[in-house]
Amino acid sequence: MKSHCPLPHTEGESLLLGHGAGGRLTGRLLDSLVLPALGAVPNGPLEDAALLPGDYELVLSTDPFVVSPLFFPGGDIGSLAVHGTVNDLAMRGALPLALSLAVIAEEGLPFGELRAVLQSAGKAARDASVPVLTGDTKVVERGAADRLFLTTTGVGRRIPGLTPSAGRARPQDVVLLSGPIGLHGTAVLSTREGLGFEAAIASDSCPLHRLVEALGPCGPAVHTLRDPTRGGLAAALNEIASASSVGVEVDEAAIPVPAPVAGACDLLGLDPLIVANEGCLVAFVAPEHADEALAALRSLPEGSDAVRIGRATEDPAARVVMRTLMGAGRVVDMPLGEQLPRIC
Amino acid sequence: MKSHCPLPHTEGESLLLGHGAGGRLTGRLLDSLVLPALGAVPNGPLEDAALLPGDYELVLSTDPFVVSPLFFPGGDIGSLAVHGTVNDLAMRGALPLALSLAVIAEEGLPFGELRAVLQSAGKAARDASVPVLTGDTKVVERGAADRLFLTTTGVGRRIPGLTPSAGRARPQDVVLLSGPIGLHGTAVLSTREGLGFEAAIASDSCPLHRLVEALGPCGPAVHTLRDPTRGGLAAALNEIASASSVGVEVDEAAIPVPAPVAGACDLLGLDPLIVANEGCLVAFVAPEHADEALAALRSLPEGSDAVRIGRATEDPAARVVMRTLMGAGRVVDMPLGEQLPRIC
Repeated sequence: MKSHCPLPHTEGESLLLGHGAGGRLTGRLLDSLVLPALGAVPNGPLEDAALLPGDYELVLSTDPFVVSPLFFPGGDIGSLAVHGTVNDLAMRGALPLALSLAVIAEEGLPFGELRAVLQSAGKAARDASVPVLTGDTKVVERGAADRLFLTTTGVGRRIPGLTPSAGRARPQDVVLLSGPIGLHGTAVLSTREGLGFEAAIASDSCPLHRLVEALGPCGPAVHTLRDPTRGGLAAALNEIASASSVGVEVDEAAIPVPAPVAGACDLLGLDPLIVANEGCLVAFVAPEHADEALAALRSLPEGSDAVRIGRATEDPAARVVMRTLMGAGRVVDMPLGEQLPRIC
Repeated sequence: MKSHCPLPHTEGESLLLGHGAGGRLTGRLLDSLVLPALGAVPNGPLEDAALLPGDYELVLSTDPFVVSPLFFPGGDIGSLAVHGTVNDLAMRGALPLALSLAVIAEEGLPFGELRAVLQSAGKAARDASVPVLTGDTKVVERGAADRLFLTTTGVGRRIPGLTPSAGRARPQDVVLLSGPIGLHGTAVLSTREGLGFEAAIASDSCPLHRLVEALGPCGPAVHTLRDPTRGGLAAALNEIASASSVGVEVDEAAIPVPAPVAGACDLLGLDPLIVANEGCLVAFVAPEHADEALAALRSLPEGSDAVRIGRATEDPAARVVMRTLMGAGRVVDMPLGEQLPRIC
């Protein structure tokens, strides 16, 4: 994602939790430190996955997972790591071809926990029809890591005709959302903090590539796909608006927030728009194909609650505005930093 | 690598540092826990990199890096992470096509250190002519990780005609070694422990794909390639012997151990055969092509010290034997566990 205020960092600064949170601090870190240091001048939309050089129509994506706790209602770090990378590939219109799995574990981690996590990763991969092709394990001494971190990397093959990109949204595009928001972040937070919502809220973690496959017949009319993970729907819409230089208007009444999520967010002072999701996507689709795309999403169980939540507009300032239940227009900003640490 | 004693683990056990050390404990963990849990029945040699399904002639490899300290003579975690993955691809006969980089950083890490590591990774990638195509960063709270861990994943394209595999070594193959051993492990250990060898010993960390490219004209006569990283030359030779069901005989007098490495190992009670390397490879080559292969290795600076160290033999027990300077035969076992933690 791109920063709204790419100030240079001074040498005296150091990393904050918020620099990994997917918000403005992450964007600033990328623009001012990571990309220049790597020698990769920022010159285009940052995507969830990148096209391999050559004529392969293959995309590559990687994601480190540090979620705490390792197990939560609706999933665990193993299934999450598989779904997260499968979904990043899918957001570039690709089906997963192969995954790799890198494990960093703390000395003393019980075998039972490691086995449970890997079994869950294996099952998630089989369910998504993708092989875990290779991997490696490092063990660090007690105290040098918190139990277990997984990094999954995926190679995917683009579905013919689909070329979604964060930079391809156009004014008048219809904005679709494939399911309710806020479940993953509130499920993990509730489990970690023992808040008691665990009985009512489970993570939405699931693979999204079959939804994208269902959108295949819409072809190039599918301009942009993004799964609203860290930073939630607010970050995803802001990233798209910025990368495509469009405005986005969404209707609060149309955005599905399950009652237990709304309750948990009220209690905790969280905005459901900023809570991470791991099982839904937003799609920007040319208006003449919006009904077809919505029907395609609804044709699968993971998209049965898909809805139209708004549209893209002409706005050089790339603002995201939500029409509230009271009829007012509220600017939805890019979140700044860390609202929910170690959520994925 | 395959275990010599694949005993099942009981639920009561937990991870030891040695389970990540690349020796017998790692093999046992893979065979009895990781592969079955993932649903991947061990049914072939475990390679440094895996072929992608389909007709792409592309290989995939991933590696987490947890070296401590982050900076050491001859390199740092950034350059090491690039070289390590480039080399794993090269050991399957592939040139690197693209890398991904996943960062797990501890809150409070100075930007200056992060920038220096990423600049080093970027330079190493440019020097190896491979783009860092995509990446992601997570930040965990203080104490939840030790400064910085990197996971690099690489996609490589096989050099036409080269099909090296850990399982393709054959009796009578000549065993070549591209350079001196023991530099990386002793350099990192000396720096970490402040032992004072840092002035004399620098890591050999470097990319090996150009050496492999130089072997291209030898084609299928190049049976096996392996870079002796964790577990050192002892582990690499034992893995090949086991995967190919051959014996290996090497001459102690032929194995280049730099004097400072020998001195450091003497003082520390380390066996140089078990110390990790990051800039040399072993090649098992059909005897009629051995001279050609040796000349090819020596044609490049990183292979200028290449030597013939032994040969493969008929031995169903897949033993590795070293003819010592005294003329005796010493069995070189697969290392058990951790001699040098967090060396890569």
